[in-house]
Amino acid sequence: MELLYEGKAKRIYKTDTPNELHVQYKDDVTAGNGEKHDIMEGKGRLNNEISSLIFEYLHDFGIESHFIKKLSDTEQLVRSMKIIPLEVVVRNVAAGSITKRLPFESGQPLNKPLVEFFYKDDALGDPLITDAHVKALNIASDVEIAALKTKALKINEALIELMDKMNLQLVDFKIEFGKDDQGIITLADEISPDTCRLWDKDTKENFDKDVYRKSTGNLLDAYEAFYKKLKGAVL
Amino acid sequence: MELLYEGKAKRIYKTDTPNELHVQYKDDVTAGNGEKHDIMEGKGRLNNEISSLIFEYLHDFGIESHFIKKLSDTEQLVRSMKIIPLEVVVRNVAAGSITKRLPFESGQPLNKPLVEFFYKDDALGDPLITDAHVKALNIASDVEIAALKTKALKINEALIELMDKMNLQLVDFKIEFGKDDQGIITLADEISPDTCRLWDKDTKENFDKDVYRKSTGNLLDAYEAFYKKLKGAVL
Ligand SMILES: Nc1ncnc2c1ncn2[C@@H]1O[C@H](COP(=O)(O)OP(=O)(O)OP(=O)(O)O)[C@@H](O)[C@H]1O
Ligand SMILES: Nc1ncnc2c1ncn2[C@@H]1O[C@H](COP(=O)(O)OP(=O)(O)OP(=O)(O)O)[C@@H](O)[C@H]1O
Ligand SMILES: [Mg+2]
Ligand SMILES: [Mg+2]
Repeated sequence: MELLYEGKAKRIYKTDTPNELHVQYKDDVTAGNGEKHDIMEGKGRLNNEISSLIFEYLHDFGIESHFIKKLSDTEQLVRSMKIIPLEVVVRNVAAGSITKRLPFESGQPLNKPLVEFFYKDDALGDPLITDAHVKALNIASDVEIAALKTKALKINEALIELMDKMNLQLVDFKIEFGKDDQGIITLADEISPDTCRLWDKDTKENFDKDVYRKSTGNLLDAYEAFYKKLKGAVL
Repeated sequence: MELLYEGKAKRIYKTDTPNELHVQYKDDVTAGNGEKHDIMEGKGRLNNEISSLIFEYLHDFGIESHFIKKLSDTEQLVRSMKIIPLEVVVRNVAAGSITKRLPFESGQPLNKPLVEFFYKDDALGDPLITDAHVKALNIASDVEIAALKTKALKINEALIELMDKMNLQLVDFKIEFGKDDQGIITLADEISPDTCRLWDKDTKENFDKDVYRKSTGNLLDAYEAFYKKLKGAVL
């Protein structure tokens, strides 16, 4: 298979079917735009299993994504998308970068879910941008910006409902959207503990990549524990 | 008179009349959030004269500001405002920080005027924020955000018309708004070559603080030349 793109966490391959891609989840763990880097055997499998279960859950919730099916322990078949170069972040509680940029305390609940756009450009450090920048850079129109926000907030609602069942608080998450062959804005990429902040409601224990970013424990154990909870919740 | 606030470029004093303040323009020139600092005799006078003329011009254009009258070479009487902690930036052409943050070339015209909000907080480095952040930080409501943008764009139109008469291009400018005693959002602070980028349309010569930031010439000469052009244009 022809490798189309190798990122930090996944490899994307062409398939024999036009408009379909093969995603392989890697065992690489990175943080700080690649500053920290490790390989943890089994991490690719865990993220693939988790992401597959979440995409299936969202489908049942009425939210379509690029996900077609799981192919193996570490691989998914997905629809090919023209990726919109935005990291769409939804925050329910302040944590991470927003507490460094703005006067929010980590753990402070936001009065309502906050959607942020970061321009996907590694050389520029994925800068925060406003709706006006999104338009000035010809990334999306007003109507498309509104669709991105509406979809992101609906995904947030669905995920909150799911995390509730696991007694977890969905602090924030990052998603990517693309346009499918009909031009429809569709959820793509992955949803996993790499791309969410998930805190136990009572103990505040982390089940996400902050365990690695902050070296507070064993990442694989945290992801494995989350995967077990998730299997229980989606059954 | 009681000094209420001393900033990098101005001193604000209480007066005997409630709701009125005394603004004294200083000879200090700073750049890079205070990293570069010089004192240039006569700079306070020039900015006071220029800012006074521009506020008067805007008044005649139908745009109210805090400006009441010029008191002396370096002083103005203004209405006291509850300052909204935003630096409101309007850009017609890309230059300065936006060319470092985003893929815009210096001198590249924007498809339409772009309004940006920066949160006034020196410790945080006056970060760029989105409308959603403005609301989350309880700085302004949706209606107020719309008013800030509409007013900023109207000021842009008025200033472009003025600069046209001087054969200057209004590249960008930064303004501040406050609420007056009636709660009306009103233009405050200053409009001067410290807070604008002004390029000769033909030669691209700078008549603004970039002359100091980039050490490309004598700041006082540039401001004096601009002041002469301005006097010609507003007569
Ligand atoms: N359905 C899809 N069609 C095409 N590209 C996709 C699809 N889903 C995700 N992608 C892209 O595939 C890549 C996934 O790789 P990975 O997540 O490892 O990238 P990364 O290292 O995070 O880098 P970046 O996201 O900045 O490109 C991303 O570039 C993502 O935008
Ligand atoms: N009408 C007004 N009423 C009250 N405050 C005002 C008014 N106009 C301007 N100000 C405030 O007065 C100060 C002017 O001082 P100066 O421009 O030197 O400040 P600065 O060093 O730029 O710092 P900063 O703008 O970050 O406070 C600013 O804080 C500005 O917001
Ligand atoms: Mg990625
Ligand atoms: Mg100032």
